Amino acid sequence: MLRTHTCGELKIADAGKKVTLSGWVQRSRDLGGMTFIDLRDRYGITQLVFNMEVNPTLCQEARQLGREYVVSIEGHVTERSNKNLKMPTGEIEITVEKFTVLNVSKTPPFTIEDNTDGGDELRMKYRYLDLRRNINKTNLELRHKMSVETRNYLSDQQFLEVETPYLIKSTPEGARDFVVPSRMNPGQFYALPQSPQTFKQLLMVAGYDRYFQIVRCFRDEDLRADRQPEFTQIDCEMSFVTRDDILDTFEGLAKHLFKKIKNIDIHDFPRMSYDEAMTRYGSDKPDIRFGMEFVELNALVKGKDFKVFDDAELVVGICVKDCATYTRKQLDELTDFVRKPQVGANGMVYVKYNEDGSFTSSVSKFYTDHDFVAIAHAMGAHENDLMLLLAGNAEKTRKALCELRLEMGNRLGLRLNDDYKPLWVIDFPLLEWDEDSQRFYAKHHPFTAPKPEDIPLLDTNPIAIKANAYDLVINGVEIGGGSIRIHNKELQKKMFEILGFTDEDAQNQFGFLMNAFEYGAPPHGGIAFGFDRFCAVFGGSDSIRDYIAFPKNNSGRDVMIDSPSEISQQQLGELAIRVVSS
Amino acid sequence: MLRTHTCGELKIADAGKKVTLSGWVQRSRDLGGMTFIDLRDRYGITQLVFNMEVNPTLCQEARQLGREYVVSIEGHVTERSNKNLKMPTGEIEITVEKFTVLNVSKTPPFTIEDNTDGGDELRMKYRYLDLRRNINKTNLELRHKMSVETRNYLSDQQFLEVETPYLIKSTPEGARDFVVPSRMNPGQFYALPQSPQTFKQLLMVAGYDRYFQIVRCFRDEDLRADRQPEFTQIDCEMSFVTRDDILDTFEGLAKHLFKKIKNIDIHDFPRMSYDEAMTRYGSDKPDIRFGMEFVELNALVKGKDFKVFDDAELVVGICVKDCATYTRKQLDELTDFVRKPQVGANGMVYVKYNEDGSFTSSVSKFYTDHDFVAIAHAMGAHENDLMLLLAGNAEKTRKALCELRLEMGNRLGLRLNDDYKPLWVIDFPLLEWDEDSQRFYAKHHPFTAPKPEDIPLLDTNPIAIKANAYDLVINGVEIGGGSIRIHNKELQKKMFEILGFTDEDAQNQFGFLMNAFEYGAPPHGGIAFGFDRFCAVFGGSDSIRDYIAFPKNNSGRDVMIDSPSEISQQQLGELAIRVVSS
Repeated sequence: MLRTHTCGELKIADAGKKVTLSGWVQRSRDLGGMTFIDLRDRYGITQLVFNMEVNPTLCQEARQLGREYVVSIEGHVTERSNKNLKMPTGEIEITVEKFTVLNVSKTPPFTIEDNTDGGDELRMKYRYLDLRRNINKTNLELRHKMSVETRNYLSDQQFLEVETPYLIKSTPEGARDFVVPSRMNPGQFYALPQSPQTFKQLLMVAGYDRYFQIVRCFRDEDLRADRQPEFTQIDCEMSFVTRDDILDTFEGLAKHLFKKIKNIDIHDFPRMSYDEAMTRYGSDKPDIRFGMEFVELNALVKGKDFKVFDDAELVVGICVKDCATYTRKQLDELTDFVRKPQVGANGMVYVKYNEDGSFTSSVSKFYTDHDFVAIAHAMGAHENDLMLLLAGNAEKTRKALCELRLEMGNRLGLRLNDDYKPLWVIDFPLLEWDEDSQRFYAKHHPFTAPKPEDIPLLDTNPIAIKANAYDLVINGVEIGGGSIRIHNKELQKKMFEILGFTDEDAQNQFGFLMNAFEYGAPPHGGIAFGFDRFCAVFGGSDSIRDYIAFPKNNSGRDVMIDSPSEISQQQLGELAIRVVSS
Repeated sequence: MLRTHTCGELKIADAGKKVTLSGWVQRSRDLGGMTFIDLRDRYGITQLVFNMEVNPTLCQEARQLGREYVVSIEGHVTERSNKNLKMPTGEIEITVEKFTVLNVSKTPPFTIEDNTDGGDELRMKYRYLDLRRNINKTNLELRHKMSVETRNYLSDQQFLEVETPYLIKSTPEGARDFVVPSRMNPGQFYALPQSPQTFKQLLMVAGYDRYFQIVRCFRDEDLRADRQPEFTQIDCEMSFVTRDDILDTFEGLAKHLFKKIKNIDIHDFPRMSYDEAMTRYGSDKPDIRFGMEFVELNALVKGKDFKVFDDAELVVGICVKDCATYTRKQLDELTDFVRKPQVGANGMVYVKYNEDGSFTSSVSKFYTDHDFVAIAHAMGAHENDLMLLLAGNAEKTRKALCELRLEMGNRLGLRLNDDYKPLWVIDFPLLEWDEDSQRFYAKHHPFTAPKPEDIPLLDTNPIAIKANAYDLVINGVEIGGGSIRIHNKELQKKMFEILGFTDEDAQNQFGFLMNAFEYGAPPHGGIAFGFDRFCAVFGGSDSIRDYIAFPKNNSGRDVMIDSPSEISQQQLGELAIRVVSS
């Protein structure tokens, strides 16, 4: 090794030792007769000192070292006179006796600091320099630890990690596939997996009982912020289980990660039906770190000549504690917020329950104080609280109020990064009706089993069927989702029929799975976690990109390696394809 | 859970317990008043017993259960009268009181037994049934354990697992890429990585110090037996190291695996130069489980009027102990063997050192007993030994003799599966000259550093340069290979020049890496192990396919899911490509 120690490990107890360190020049300070250099490696920073009086030649040479030069130094560990107790190595420095420049560096296009002066685009282009920043290193170390602990837990629970193929078969159902032309089979294509769903089910048919894989998945979607064309899943499946076995097992995984990574003990996760989550929070991924739950007010507010409420399918509000003193300006900001297209409300009604017991409201001409008392009572509001009400189409209004609730949570500091409140959302609808194509789509995927008691509805009222499906939600973020699968060929066939597949389509696309179900498929179910997002939630960040070593931008490009790119005519020819100019 | 225990865990101590088991019907035997069923799950087999006298209805129903039916049973653990001590559960059976058929099964197209009646093609088509066979389960369990222990060892050594992208950029150097058309960037393509080589080097530039990843790689090559278009590597890289640091670290990994997986302690691995390996064994991946080393005989055999030897560039032989009694037929077989096209010799000369001290040889008219004594002395042959000699072009002859040596090793039972003899082969040539294209190719890859002392030869005699590269070989199989990398932009540029890249080519394909080297690249090096092959060697098999859950056939097809396949015109249109009919 070109070092005896790393830059993160020398302590006061090492004083006097002769050491060799290697690393990067983080910064350099000339203080008259002394030159100090912070030498950085993955493990930390150690201060080097060069003394002009003791060794003027060496000190002069050290002054030539630029930022990000790679050097190897030899010297003795010395106790610092001016200790920095915030740094693990802050009690010592190295009195350098000799150094070698292992490589020079041009001046980086941005500073390698937590608060860098480099913009997003520049940092992506020079991602190998961006990754030197402490924050990115911490994120990737967290990701590593998450994967280690995930594997430890699942291996201890008898799960086998089985690698499934990346070159599979394109299926039109679901999101768009990335495809790979086959040179050996001209005119034919592989697809990259959107998930190993069918393979993990086949592994259950094969008797593997407990499978997992930390695996890359691919979706050729138009990228919104925080979507990546390739992303990583913790993909899991179990046999001979009921839903609660799966919830218990993976609640165990989440608790294990909270304990091992963040040293937090988390009690049993609440389980909330989809309907309840929609009613109480207007979301199937509620942030339950704070209350401010929805209160439906139709019965109290209708028939008082306020047309907006009278015409509304749903009038629903939240009670914001201790905010009756909100100013006109603050309330206008909130109205502007709910009117944003991505929130989608037409307006907002407020009712202030003033400290003196009176009410101030944007709709006071329609409602008496007596009405407001009733509303306040229904909403659990007291003096000094602010009630915010939205009205309109039920689904849209819930969505808008959900956004408003989260906004108020942010404004009031109720969404703390280090407060973790996971829950299971269960009993999702099995199907969604699509007006455009006039057909049902599977809300989860076509292999999801209905709740056993709802199976008769397949023939009578499919849209009312609840799926035996579940999501793990942490702090308003969907971390994972799964379901008990259909393991019966007839039921699977019926499901494909309801989804509008012809027999031929179903056979073409999923014939191998349906055939497999004829040879003794066990009852099974599973779950998949978005690993990038899991890491982001643990890291306290909104952006999965911060937890991916080499992410792509919103056009699906890797700007560092400049990909995708054109390929040669010879390659195209070998693959028997041609590019069609637009 | 639809069980209280698995089918592998009940012991005599559990006798009397009431249990629920779930699994597959492995086999069923009716013995007059009793019916015995072997119930199988991933963990083992447990015998169920149904008694016609005690419960005739249940017993009758049990007799209807077909092979591979999935059932859940309830009953009591009972001591067997007829114990089978070869089975972990062989002292008990379950007296069944109740059972439920969880799923039926058609009769499988082949038997689910270690020695199945199913051919390769049929088993691949029904891979989910093939995987039920014990041998495949054992292989995938071994693979899981290998990955767990690899990760444990490397994580303990401070390696970070970092996921690198699968959608990267096509580079013409090396094998053929699989490519992925980009819908969002029409006319442009991603490539699937042949290895994460450039990304792991960028991670070293980024200061990550120790990286690893168990990662899928892709090569669009014509498939020979035991090649797969997608395969898995243990990919590793380290900074601030010399070659020996890397060899020590990964020798540690191999020893860890031998100890943890096979409970074998292996001493330090020998290190042998490429030249020495070629001279002693005619191979850069010698099987050193047995001797029979090459002895070069030019000095002893030339000038005796035997034209074949006189004209040969090299005459080289092996001494086969105690085989002077080989018959004419046996010797003819060996001659036929060396003449096979894949071995490539024109003929074989034998010299028997008979028990009575005389010599019998196919070339006795050219050589005296005195000559044979000298040859025998050179070859370390004694009475009763057989000497086998080949002659011709040095490279071809070494290759052919290598094959003959391995054949003799097989015939004499010297290549034992449970005898592991790893070694490092080092000091490979840096370059190969290709006559067809009249250019040098990198023997390892273009990022491999020359041995420091050979750098001056870049300008004068490139073909003589040794690379700072190394392979890990176990029992004649190359398990892994790597090198110290070039970390200096000028040297990398020179390397590309020697390989015939124009500046523009080099910049287009590897510009991002060469640019990265301008910003403080540390000295670094690494290694990649073929994980599929590593597993096969540990499992004592020649075939990597046995260690892959869902392998492809020699045409790159997955016959189970019938992939690759055609995609829709709409998909082609979105991707701006067209299939060219041949």
